[in-house]
Amino acid sequence: MNAMAESAYALLQARAARIATLGEASAMLGWDSSAMMPPGGAASRGDQIAVLYGLMHELGTAPEVADWLDRAEAAPPEGAWDRANLALMRRGHTRATAVDASLVEATARANSACEKVWREARALSDFAMVADSLAEVVRLARENAAALSARLGMSPYDALMDGYQHGITASDVAPVFAQYETFLERALPRALELQAARPAPLKPTGPFAVATQEELCRRLSAAAGLDYDHARLDRSVHPFCGGTRTDVRITTRYDEADFAQALMGVMHETGHALYERGLPEAWARQPVGEAAGMGVHESQSLIIEMQACRSDAYLTWLAPILRQSFGNDPAFVPANLGALWRRVSRGFIRVDADEMTYPAHVILRFRLEQALISGDLAVADLPGAWNDGMQALLGITPPNDAKGCLQDIHWYDGAFGYFPSYTLGAMGAAQLMGAARRELPGLDGELALGNLGALTGWLRPRIHNKGSLLGYNDLLLAATGKTLDPTDFQNHLVSRYLAG
Amino acid sequence: MNAMAESAYALLQARAARIATLGEASAMLGWDSSAMMPPGGAASRGDQIAVLYGLMHELGTAPEVADWLDRAEAAPPEGAWDRANLALMRRGHTRATAVDASLVEATARANSACEKVWREARALSDFAMVADSLAEVVRLARENAAALSARLGMSPYDALMDGYQHGITASDVAPVFAQYETFLERALPRALELQAARPAPLKPTGPFAVATQEELCRRLSAAAGLDYDHARLDRSVHPFCGGTRTDVRITTRYDEADFAQALMGVMHETGHALYERGLPEAWARQPVGEAAGMGVHESQSLIIEMQACRSDAYLTWLAPILRQSFGNDPAFVPANLGALWRRVSRGFIRVDADEMTYPAHVILRFRLEQALISGDLAVADLPGAWNDGMQALLGITPPNDAKGCLQDIHWYDGAFGYFPSYTLGAMGAAQLMGAARRELPGLDGELALGNLGALTGWLRPRIHNKGSLLGYNDLLLAATGKTLDPTDFQNHLVSRYLAG
Repeated sequence: MNAMAESAYALLQARAARIATLGEASAMLGWDSSAMMPPGGAASRGDQIAVLYGLMHELGTAPEVADWLDRAEAAPPEGAWDRANLALMRRGHTRATAVDASLVEATARANSACEKVWREARALSDFAMVADSLAEVVRLARENAAALSARLGMSPYDALMDGYQHGITASDVAPVFAQYETFLERALPRALELQAARPAPLKPTGPFAVATQEELCRRLSAAAGLDYDHARLDRSVHPFCGGTRTDVRITTRYDEADFAQALMGVMHETGHALYERGLPEAWARQPVGEAAGMGVHESQSLIIEMQACRSDAYLTWLAPILRQSFGNDPAFVPANLGALWRRVSRGFIRVDADEMTYPAHVILRFRLEQALISGDLAVADLPGAWNDGMQALLGITPPNDAKGCLQDIHWYDGAFGYFPSYTLGAMGAAQLMGAARRELPGLDGELALGNLGALTGWLRPRIHNKGSLLGYNDLLLAATGKTLDPTDFQNHLVSRYLAG
Repeated sequence: MNAMAESAYALLQARAARIATLGEASAMLGWDSSAMMPPGGAASRGDQIAVLYGLMHELGTAPEVADWLDRAEAAPPEGAWDRANLALMRRGHTRATAVDASLVEATARANSACEKVWREARALSDFAMVADSLAEVVRLARENAAALSARLGMSPYDALMDGYQHGITASDVAPVFAQYETFLERALPRALELQAARPAPLKPTGPFAVATQEELCRRLSAAAGLDYDHARLDRSVHPFCGGTRTDVRITTRYDEADFAQALMGVMHETGHALYERGLPEAWARQPVGEAAGMGVHESQSLIIEMQACRSDAYLTWLAPILRQSFGNDPAFVPANLGALWRRVSRGFIRVDADEMTYPAHVILRFRLEQALISGDLAVADLPGAWNDGMQALLGITPPNDAKGCLQDIHWYDGAFGYFPSYTLGAMGAAQLMGAARRELPGLDGELALGNLGALTGWLRPRIHNKGSLLGYNDLLLAATGKTLDPTDFQNHLVSRYLAG
């Protein structure tokens, strides 16, 4: 190692910190846009965020950065973290410089235009209305994918997927999804049959005052380990977890008729928030200190919401809490809450899907978007291919495109390669929970006391504190002894839905 | 005009817009820090704002900017607005480049260190504890003032004052303040005498529910013209008006025992907010489109709060509204509200002062800070000079330095030249109100109907829409036919406090 190369890496670190700090500013403005901003602020806010992104891009792709990277790589730093950090800097630089500014701009314009048309097309369930716009979005996405593919040395689709979750490829995911499809073919009818044989669960009688719901959400998220000295809970139309590592902002929406939506939503966002709060402080504002990707992030929200908070053990603890908050409703019995909040159904809409059928929605999109990017599927043929896929996977055919290929914003906004993250999250969460249960025999006993500390204490060194040191599969391998494997998720579903 | 110079000015405009947009981002983060942020976010927030300011400074002082300015000035744009804009760009560039980066950094460090010591020194009322830190702050402020003075061609103190309010100098202010001092010598004893001769006003009986106060504040500010599609009202320890032109954020604090503090505070911030909302949209994100300075800004808050909302006419309208909100308290009678909310007293604390004695607090500071900057007053002699000044101006001597020269953060944070803005605001507000009353004979009739539209409609083209086209005195001259003149303020005080 020579002094010059060392200094180049130090320069890269300082630049990364500056860019990350601008990213924090942008994240706060994004939270404000959704949770606080009056409508009249929208246009200026768009400019503010665009200027911040523009500066982040300029700072990341300035000529000196390429030089620093070359010099740093010529005499790389010692230590796994620094080396991973440098590799992530290179990857970020490659991604940021692979695509011409003119293509970036054309893509942003096409995505934004298509998204606007899509809102109307979805409302009218008129795919033809948006087909041309989507074709342009797909054409540009293919150009982007080709440019990234050439520079990153991975397939065009993998190059897109890598933008959301690194350390796993389509060829890793495809067999896992195929195995799940086979599982679902037998598991879903059986689960539905068992469910139909049981008496319908009682629905608790509302209304549930919003202030009480909010207080309960705050209490349960705090009990799960969210430190409100470093967090806020607010309201927004679409719940999310935003903000920064030291100042996490989670949101939810409240429905007076149904408190479960807000409550489980907040526990989901709490999982995201705990991950952010647990990222390695020593690597803050460095690429290696960031979350390891959308799939890993989703695993952290789902392990809290789906694995822990909807478990029999946790519901045992939760039922009397609900009676305390909302009064003595006969629905507030653990077994009833389980039956109520864990129902399976064949539905058209991904965001409303239960945990067993959700992967089918993702598998459909994963296959279709690969075909769109490879050119095997024309945009005009998308509605038909969608409906065929739904029939094959879930045995239902959408009555219209609004309930079919128009339902999600992602493609119409240019996001290809994102969808697998949802199921990487669900399966990763089950795989992590399986390992945690093996290593912590008293885990369910803790959950039955409302204590999530044992679980999050297990996750912290294995996932949270690891930042982006490892990619998706390596992270799972280190934490659970194996790369992505749908078995744990399937076992979880069997025990939750088929054991009755 | 040649194409090259035109293009240089266009480049300057684009640069100014980019810097202003970053300023908006920073303003939103500043609001969030005070109104929303959990305590754990403070350290990161400091970094975020520092990085934004650093980038704004870099973008404003990059080598090409000097070149663009030279080229633009060689063939200046046509039109008063563009010319004023270019002149303000030059002024901003001169101010930003006049001081060495090393001095800027040393100043920031000394100010921040002194401010921390001051908090403890004030709590302990121990001036000696902070004297050395303040001496260093003053030393650096004098260096800054000297550097600015040399480049701007104005006296060192004027160069500092110009950073807060342009278009008026210490030699304009000094005789106005001297005249006011003479007025106060006779007016204050007389006002106190008249006040003592009247029965004490009734205090309304609380508690006043915070939710009701907040609703009332929102209602009255909206009635005053604040459009909540472009604004928010929140809570903070220190009330302020922040945010941006299209998304103004005002704050207040609530006291269950006394609603007047929040209510009048919100009307004050509403005045600031209406000014921001009325700045010329065509010049948004350009120097000439910004508010004309702190003195002008304060004139807009005080004309709403002090001139309009504490007037007999407005209180006539407000009294039944208060009965509606808080019940039928015998204190809710216009004459009683006037007597209650317009009391004069000799006090030690500036921020608690009534409108008649407030200028005395400012005059004292104006004189002392000039002496500190000129070197005529040593920091060690400040407590004595302060106490002598208070005795001379208000006839009282602070019992300790916490109620004397330690009370305000400004100097301890390096802000010299700011204090005059408060009284420039109060006198400017009275001068503008005088002109408005002459030109709008029905103005008080409108106020008695709770209608501030006539007043703000008069202010909009004369002050709000003018942005920074004119400096303080020229703006007053254009709006009222004369430069700063304390007569209107004195007449206002005579009519409000001495006419009884």
